[in-house]
Amino acid sequence: MAGLGARSVLVTGANRGIGLELVRQLLSKPDSPQWIFACSREPDGERGQELKNLVSKHPNVVMVKLDATSSASIKDAAACVENHLKGSGLNLLINNAGIYKEVALDAVDEEDMINGYRTNVIGPLLVSQAFLPLLRRAAQGSSEKGLSCSRAAVINISSALGSIELVPLTYIKPAIPYRCSKVALNMLTQCQSVGYKEDGILCTTVHPGWVKTDMGGQEV
Amino acid sequence: MAGLGARSVLVTGANRGIGLELVRQLLSKPDSPQWIFACSREPDGERGQELKNLVSKHPNVVMVKLDATSSASIKDAAACVENHLKGSGLNLLINNAGIYKEVALDAVDEEDMINGYRTNVIGPLLVSQAFLPLLRRAAQGSSEKGLSCSRAAVINISSALGSIELVPLTYIKPAIPYRCSKVALNMLTQCQSVGYKEDGILCTTVHPGWVKTDMGGQEV
Repeated sequence: MAGLGARSVLVTGANRGIGLELVRQLLSKPDSPQWIFACSREPDGERGQELKNLVSKHPNVVMVKLDATSSASIKDAAACVENHLKGSGLNLLINNAGIYKEVALDAVDEEDMINGYRTNVIGPLLVSQAFLPLLRRAAQGSSEKGLSCSRAAVINISSALGSIELVPLTYIKPAIPYRCSKVALNMLTQCQSVGYKEDGILCTTVHPGWVKTDMGGQEV
Repeated sequence: MAGLGARSVLVTGANRGIGLELVRQLLSKPDSPQWIFACSREPDGERGQELKNLVSKHPNVVMVKLDATSSASIKDAAACVENHLKGSGLNLLINNAGIYKEVALDAVDEEDMINGYRTNVIGPLLVSQAFLPLLRRAAQGSSEKGLSCSRAAVINISSALGSIELVPLTYIKPAIPYRCSKVALNMLTQCQSVGYKEDGILCTTVHPGWVKTDMGGQEV
């Protein structure tokens, strides 16, 4: 992420895995953001210790409680971030929080499907809605033209398992709720990219590849 | 649908729109199926009158109560169909029932998203699971080889609005919950096509184009 140039970045699901590593890499950059909002469902939970250690060393990292399945929690988080930004906008929103369940076609049930959709699709939708005023403010306040992560952007973290084309090659992991939610997230992102283009907000999705995390497991 | 050759066909959402027209066209064929199971949420409701008229004229059409958002209702429907088939399998399952809501990116909420996903994705998933034993029985009992609608098949009715590629051309109708659910239905279908191939069950999705129905409205 050389030369990102974003003054403020928010990452959901930042207490572990890819989210935590994103925060670490943002901190290691020469032009590290002035504000990094590291969001997690339970900032005070056991799994938040590594993030807490980072926060104690880096005053530009702010831990924010955000549960992507709760619209009230999302609104509280947006108010908290706005308060910190003191009139500035948010340059970069990274919707990273997600859940994965390995479940096959014959065993998957309604609850699995709803849970996957709620966290992996509705979460990024509601978070983007809540932070839209701050993203718009960043776009309007920027001297840059065109679309960029340093001006105003939403990045939704997706997966190759959300590719319909790749299903025959990747079906060794059926993961039906995950696949259906990630392809829907790709659709949502495409809608956001068209819908928010005139606001000067870049919206895109990224497949990070397999990563050795709690979610990714120890092997491909 | 010339030369379909399916002995038994089930259509969900058969009381109006595309579902009702599918039943009509199946009846008009020279090799009309021995059984047409015409499913709807409320067979006795006001909106079921046209289907009732068809049933009264055609003894091979059976009205079946099926609410695709209720797993109990789906199981009851499968038991009812199995009873009618008297040991035979079901050749063709058409998951046609669906809902549409015209709502834009900034206004769409959690409830809209869940409702769309429940009917348009989880419905076809649970219906396919419930009728799988009858579809397998049809595939096993057929003298045909390979995959076909006359042997055993699941057809999920999708939409061009579920195409990520076409979003920039079709965004005049944002319909976020519909788009996200229909692309997820395309993913589900692709998973079904891989997962049920060895059972001899063809799984595919169809975009019928714009149709002048209650859902489609009066103009494109």
